[in-house]
Amino acid sequence: MDAEQLRENAHIMVDFIADYYKSIENFPVLSQVEPGYLRKLLPDSAPNQPESLQNVLDDVQAKILPGVTHWQSPNYFAYYPSNSSVAGFLGEMLSAGINMVGFSWITSPAATELEMIVLDWLGKLLKLPQDFLSTGQGGGVIQGTASEAVLVVLVAARDKVLRRLGKNALQKLVVYASDQTHSALQKACQIGGIHPENCKLLKTDSSTDYALSPDLLSKAISDDISLGLIPFFLCGTVGTTSSTAADPLLALGKITKSNGIWFHVDAAYAGSACICPEYRPYIDGVEEADSFNMNAHKWFLTNFDCSALWVKDRNALIQSLSTNPEFLKNKASQANDVVDYKDWQIPLGRRFRSLKLWMVLRLYGLENLQCYIRNHINLAKCFEGLVAADSRFEVVTPRIFSLVCFRLLPPDNSEDHGNSLNHDLLDAVNSTGKIFLSHTVLSGKYILRFAVGAPLTEERHVTAAWKVLQDETSALSRSL
Amino acid sequence: MDAEQLRENAHIMVDFIADYYKSIENFPVLSQVEPGYLRKLLPDSAPNQPESLQNVLDDVQAKILPGVTHWQSPNYFAYYPSNSSVAGFLGEMLSAGINMVGFSWITSPAATELEMIVLDWLGKLLKLPQDFLSTGQGGGVIQGTASEAVLVVLVAARDKVLRRLGKNALQKLVVYASDQTHSALQKACQIGGIHPENCKLLKTDSSTDYALSPDLLSKAISDDISLGLIPFFLCGTVGTTSSTAADPLLALGKITKSNGIWFHVDAAYAGSACICPEYRPYIDGVEEADSFNMNAHKWFLTNFDCSALWVKDRNALIQSLSTNPEFLKNKASQANDVVDYKDWQIPLGRRFRSLKLWMVLRLYGLENLQCYIRNHINLAKCFEGLVAADSRFEVVTPRIFSLVCFRLLPPDNSEDHGNSLNHDLLDAVNSTGKIFLSHTVLSGKYILRFAVGAPLTEERHVTAAWKVLQDETSALSRSL
Repeated sequence: MDAEQLRENAHIMVDFIADYYKSIENFPVLSQVEPGYLRKLLPDSAPNQPESLQNVLDDVQAKILPGVTHWQSPNYFAYYPSNSSVAGFLGEMLSAGINMVGFSWITSPAATELEMIVLDWLGKLLKLPQDFLSTGQGGGVIQGTASEAVLVVLVAARDKVLRRLGKNALQKLVVYASDQTHSALQKACQIGGIHPENCKLLKTDSSTDYALSPDLLSKAISDDISLGLIPFFLCGTVGTTSSTAADPLLALGKITKSNGIWFHVDAAYAGSACICPEYRPYIDGVEEADSFNMNAHKWFLTNFDCSALWVKDRNALIQSLSTNPEFLKNKASQANDVVDYKDWQIPLGRRFRSLKLWMVLRLYGLENLQCYIRNHINLAKCFEGLVAADSRFEVVTPRIFSLVCFRLLPPDNSEDHGNSLNHDLLDAVNSTGKIFLSHTVLSGKYILRFAVGAPLTEERHVTAAWKVLQDETSALSRSL
Repeated sequence: MDAEQLRENAHIMVDFIADYYKSIENFPVLSQVEPGYLRKLLPDSAPNQPESLQNVLDDVQAKILPGVTHWQSPNYFAYYPSNSSVAGFLGEMLSAGINMVGFSWITSPAATELEMIVLDWLGKLLKLPQDFLSTGQGGGVIQGTASEAVLVVLVAARDKVLRRLGKNALQKLVVYASDQTHSALQKACQIGGIHPENCKLLKTDSSTDYALSPDLLSKAISDDISLGLIPFFLCGTVGTTSSTAADPLLALGKITKSNGIWFHVDAAYAGSACICPEYRPYIDGVEEADSFNMNAHKWFLTNFDCSALWVKDRNALIQSLSTNPEFLKNKASQANDVVDYKDWQIPLGRRFRSLKLWMVLRLYGLENLQCYIRNHINLAKCFEGLVAADSRFEVVTPRIFSLVCFRLLPPDNSEDHGNSLNHDLLDAVNSTGKIFLSHTVLSGKYILRFAVGAPLTEERHVTAAWKVLQDETSALSRSL
């Protein structure tokens, strides 16, 4: 590590990355390589002698980038977005430059304290209740992903019950969510030792726009209690992965409260929109929740990874996740004067991730961030209008945020046919390399998902995408 | 995200970071701020309007850097190192620039395939047995930290047993390790629902240099079996956190094999040294293990985080950690043609971390990396010599790698006095801001740890550090 060598080489890398962004539309957005392509292009073992940066960058250009699916391309409409931005990128650089490991306060007080402050800032932008902020018994913490967020709160909730009822109650613990909940919950249950059959995913359908019905939840809870089971955790979702369904938090929260159930709200994608007053009502009722999560790395211009989790009772996390080995003891921690984030998460080590979120908030400011969200939602509205105007298609669920769920109608009204048709259309569209969409299944129907949210996407990309879909639809009809 | 704006601002950030490295010795290596210092310096909420990068960088300089503990300082000797390097930094930049989320092969084939290739490269440098490489049933994967590595293999091992014996066997499962094992194991047990009393940390002492005794392990296993318990997991460590003790892998592996126990080897710190033929014998016996872990982000010039985990049976991981929601289904995954790393780890999303490890291996090459390791070990030897030559001190355990465990001898042979004396010495030394050391306790004795491994550390820093220790010792003696 030599400062001047770093300066020289990092300037070269900056230009390489800036050039990548300039040319990003020249790549097929979904990589078109075949499995195993890279092994044929790279040697079998590491070199004995150093190679030049130019050699490596040539390989990145010729061998790596063709195998990249370009999440930053303006033609990326799959899954949910993963935003990169100038501010987020600068924050990543600075964090990698300082390269400290902030497990305890003492190992870099600024890392812990900036994280507390910045999550308070973001919590205020989201109008989270006061008791999620670090000034009380709660607080925010940056996790890597929503999967880790739900795992740590699940474990905290589990242990809270087990401390009361004894370890052997584990097999009776029941978790609830809608069947639209992200698979991260199921994975958290697997890791945390919850019986798979006790992870109850309650059925949703179009009558609630795929949101969880409070009545169904109430009934499930009382049925389970009468069977001697122990309901302990509900994961509500605002902005489900399939269709951005928003569970009714307030009604759900009343049920969890009266049953002593930990209520976690996963707003990984849609949370970002809630900085706009007109979308904030979707998380009304969050005051009833015990924990709330949104991914700043999805739709909030903060480079991956940065998943913001707030809890009302930080001690619940700490009681489950703390360890206190001698080699980490220090005056500040022993005096209980400080937060040691190692006890709020699975890993010990942690990066200085608050820097990038801080930079995003400061370099853009709230008003620009609101414009950014609204612009994407308007683009999604525009796409929705295009779909609605073409009688071959239907919009399947009401668009709430920036995702449009739609499908090609089967000409003969056969659902089986409709499913294979939409499957084939998706395949054809993604094979062009011009745009990248993904899919889901709702009530047995294969649905195409058009998620607007890449920072470079403009209206012309949305209309061009629609043209690709129309062209491929026509080609498909001709080939039938 | 505008390419030219990124270029302009990122060049500024490069210079900021290069200047930071140039001036890094001017900061107190251990931050000297008081708890809560930062909240007094920053506003209560995020700005409505954007601020300039210069404003933010001024704040980084004036408000953040004083609160940083400078892990990259050449005067950093605490815990274990966390290496930053030009290559590692460039890899982080590129990964943040591409900013893709590689959960499935399809979401960036290059990310999955480069990771498989680079972990095969590193596995070969470490002379890991063939069945840890991706060409067979095993393979490598980059986890965030050793904590996540041990958790995923613990869960895989747990579920392998529970699939055979039924879920209710959970409460009988027993984990073994020495009492020197990293606290990450205890945390993994907590998360994975292993009864705390069934996480058995077997006593070590100076008679084995704090390595786990195979006889003790054998006895513990047979005792537990006779009590109806089910031994299922051993965590062996090569290079413990307190004193770099190396458990005898071959002897331990024979015991685990004959008892059907999953054998995990944690070489988070010392694994890096095993690329040198003269240190490779410390992991002899790894062929008996089921999984092996080393942190490239510790002592291998790869910026945090990058923890390399290899397993012999990747299906064990996949069976425990896979989910297959509709919205992630795709042709390549369904055809089983590819690796989807989401099923080898806790989170769904993942960064393109193999880039930085690839760059480290290519831009430095094996021979330079070996020199790098040997240089640090020589510096530690030099420090050990200095301690040994001063009759006020003793070297407490044999130095194996780049960590020296030592202490100030109590003048009156009173151990209590010795402990408070060394505690005070550590406090005094760290309060100077000139160097940063940490401590441990071995057999009741408070020990100072001097871990060489920061990339910028040279012999002059080691001798200067010794001078600080001597000076503070003299000052302490005078004040008694």
